[in-house]
Amino acid sequence: MNYKFALFLIYLISYSSLAQIPSNEQDSILIREIYNEVLANSEIYSNLRSLTKDIGHRLSGSPQADQAMVWGANLFRQYGIDSVFIMPVEVPSWTRNDIAEARVHISDGRVIPLHITALGGSISTPNNSAIRSKIIIVKHINELAEIDNVDGKIVLFNRPMDPVLINTGAAYGGANDQRSYGAIKASEAGAIGALVRSLTHSLDTVPHTGAMRYNDKVEKIPAAAISTVDARLLTQLLEEDSELEVEFVMNCKTLPNVTQGNVVGEWTGSTYPNEVITLGGHLDSWDIGEGAHDDGAGVVHTIETLRLLKAVGYTPKRTIRFVLFINEENGNRGGIEYARIANEESLSGDKIYIAAMESDAGGFSPRGFSLDAPYDQFELFKNWQSLFEPYGLYHFKRGWAGVDIGPLKKLDHRPFMVGLKPDGQRYFDFHHTENDTFENVHKRELELGAAAMASIIMLIDKHLPSPNND
Amino acid sequence: MNYKFALFLIYLISYSSLAQIPSNEQDSILIREIYNEVLANSEIYSNLRSLTKDIGHRLSGSPQADQAMVWGANLFRQYGIDSVFIMPVEVPSWTRNDIAEARVHISDGRVIPLHITALGGSISTPNNSAIRSKIIIVKHINELAEIDNVDGKIVLFNRPMDPVLINTGAAYGGANDQRSYGAIKASEAGAIGALVRSLTHSLDTVPHTGAMRYNDKVEKIPAAAISTVDARLLTQLLEEDSELEVEFVMNCKTLPNVTQGNVVGEWTGSTYPNEVITLGGHLDSWDIGEGAHDDGAGVVHTIETLRLLKAVGYTPKRTIRFVLFINEENGNRGGIEYARIANEESLSGDKIYIAAMESDAGGFSPRGFSLDAPYDQFELFKNWQSLFEPYGLYHFKRGWAGVDIGPLKKLDHRPFMVGLKPDGQRYFDFHHTENDTFENVHKRELELGAAAMASIIMLIDKHLPSPNND
Repeated sequence: MNYKFALFLIYLISYSSLAQIPSNEQDSILIREIYNEVLANSEIYSNLRSLTKDIGHRLSGSPQADQAMVWGANLFRQYGIDSVFIMPVEVPSWTRNDIAEARVHISDGRVIPLHITALGGSISTPNNSAIRSKIIIVKHINELAEIDNVDGKIVLFNRPMDPVLINTGAAYGGANDQRSYGAIKASEAGAIGALVRSLTHSLDTVPHTGAMRYNDKVEKIPAAAISTVDARLLTQLLEEDSELEVEFVMNCKTLPNVTQGNVVGEWTGSTYPNEVITLGGHLDSWDIGEGAHDDGAGVVHTIETLRLLKAVGYTPKRTIRFVLFINEENGNRGGIEYARIANEESLSGDKIYIAAMESDAGGFSPRGFSLDAPYDQFELFKNWQSLFEPYGLYHFKRGWAGVDIGPLKKLDHRPFMVGLKPDGQRYFDFHHTENDTFENVHKRELELGAAAMASIIMLIDKHLPSPNND
Repeated sequence: MNYKFALFLIYLISYSSLAQIPSNEQDSILIREIYNEVLANSEIYSNLRSLTKDIGHRLSGSPQADQAMVWGANLFRQYGIDSVFIMPVEVPSWTRNDIAEARVHISDGRVIPLHITALGGSISTPNNSAIRSKIIIVKHINELAEIDNVDGKIVLFNRPMDPVLINTGAAYGGANDQRSYGAIKASEAGAIGALVRSLTHSLDTVPHTGAMRYNDKVEKIPAAAISTVDARLLTQLLEEDSELEVEFVMNCKTLPNVTQGNVVGEWTGSTYPNEVITLGGHLDSWDIGEGAHDDGAGVVHTIETLRLLKAVGYTPKRTIRFVLFINEENGNRGGIEYARIANEESLSGDKIYIAAMESDAGGFSPRGFSLDAPYDQFELFKNWQSLFEPYGLYHFKRGWAGVDIGPLKKLDHRPFMVGLKPDGQRYFDFHHTENDTFENVHKRELELGAAAMASIIMLIDKHLPSPNND
């Protein structure tokens, strides 16, 4: 028998037998193929190694962020995407520079070094010289308004993340007002500097950076993250010695804005090419460590989703957009610009952004998904749960989907938005630190996340009702 | 108001209001208290540090196993147990000793060192001198019967754990015939030594030890685990050079049996003291690394369960037995002896062993429980699932409960047997290796496992129907 004819026969037999299988079983078979492919043949781990080791951390505005954009676009092409383009975004640029030192001076003459790092966007200490003063320790940012001797002092915000919350993201959310608004509140009260207890459950000497804000109406003061061990130490020392002083110096600096952009890979839909499913993670990271979990994992999950859907022979009905967003960490300008263009295209009737998905919670064992969508779409989503139970994913709940895709929520046709939910117990050990490195990401856990993402994108593409049919 | 009278009033109010709450809500409140206690005040992580760092690994028969028995009994007393006793068990004793070396000799003269370690219970190489020969590589133990030139050679069993199975324990179970029976099968075919590919998904240079068997009818030959990287290397080298030879030497040795024992802490039940709920992990470990996940985690889960139930003021109806089993790794004589005595006490009518639980799958984020019980008890178990969903536990399925409690299954009154199911993706990175150390156990993940265990023991105690009422 002619070889090609034989292949054609096999194709016919497979196709006709597949057509007889109920839709739910077809989905189940395809999901199993996706999982088999990722666990036996994935390229996701070596892609993450390349991003984190060949390029490294990649703050918006940095040359590494430029390199990562080229790297991402090349991988999309290598995996057979239809087209790739850069969506230009003007992003802030800031450098931590090379000095961030602190120490405590005790009245008996002892001097103990402290572990700090600048919060992202902080000004330097005046003239890059050290500031030194007594300290005030508070647990809530609003306490300062009721304290009258803050003037000229350094404030330490020292409220730990709540340990009893199972959802570590909720514990983070409950404590990060200190990092976001600490410098403003401290300055309003007359302080000359702010230290913020690192946002982690871990008791260690590793400072965690992250975004902080200034307010044009309030004088800017320098702000740094301090390790949890040092925050505890200062609290203990201050109880014994009310005269102790803290000194710190940083030479971080804001630079001019830079034009970089979102890297967008597009796979054109076969049936409804004007309906867009967006999925992505953010390409930028903080400028310490390697941005491996945050959000190298989301970036390679996104790229591997393309490779997996191609590998199992899937043909999408809708156009799938694989997006590596820029500037999630300190501005979300990539996500905002993406939604601005989506809104224009929606209003003109060119496109309908029907769904979006994000991976930005680390490369750990996936537990499920959270859905941010109109109420009547929850049942469709919840019905998919049984398809994922063989893979250990049970969390199918309403919840936050992601920062980068967040602005899409305001579109007139609100998209079906999904966030990948990995196990979160270890995430804040690494988040925004020098320890967020490739070595702390587990190969199989990362692979399982990609399979979960590819599987749900396939289900969305197949089963989400089409507005074209409305 | 008199202070004690006020406390009494508060007690009355709490008690009467609690009595009005439906049973399911009472359970939910108590479980939340258990989780709060473990996440805010646990002592489990420092207890694991003490077991792994102050004592270290603790193979049956070793002085460290003796030390661990004293350590465990002391902790039970410290946490207010009613009584502690040692249930004597005669255990095997074996030493890995200090030599386990291997190298491959390539025909071109190159010599490359290989990473091996003795399988537990192996004899040494003859006279503690090296053996050297050509090698045969097979993937299945039964292949050897069909190969006719095995005589005088070293056999490498090289079937990897199946990567596409989500349940890593199933992948382990599917590959460990090579480790258990490899030496017997190789010897039957005439080989002089056996090497077994390490049982892990990880591709690295770390050999994984574990139990192996001999058969009295077949000559004993030395057997070692070889790292996955080296197993792959030998396969590649052999394809290029069919004359290559492997040399290895080990001075491991079997010692006389020793009497050690299960450490049993007993908390007497208030209503049905003759009904026994057993929970435990195994105190012994392999003799490399620190036995932190396997099964230090199960040991401290068990001890912390006692502390947690006391801390939330729980009073058990049934007698709870906290058991630190001996000799799980190389004989399970602790579990067998425990069941032998349980059977005697059951037959005499003294006690009814109504339930048993084990933690022996590592200290990772718990995913749920597996139930090994008569069919009509599954619904009771499944009904508890909703109580655990807020804590991310969804796996409530029938399955294997544990090696130590396994022999209890044969009692006339078959116990309700439960195994803790932690996330398994990382377990076989560490299992039976020098990397199974305290540093690779995560504090919060370990705590969550203890809370899960304490919560389900509480539910079993409260809700399992009493045979006394039959």
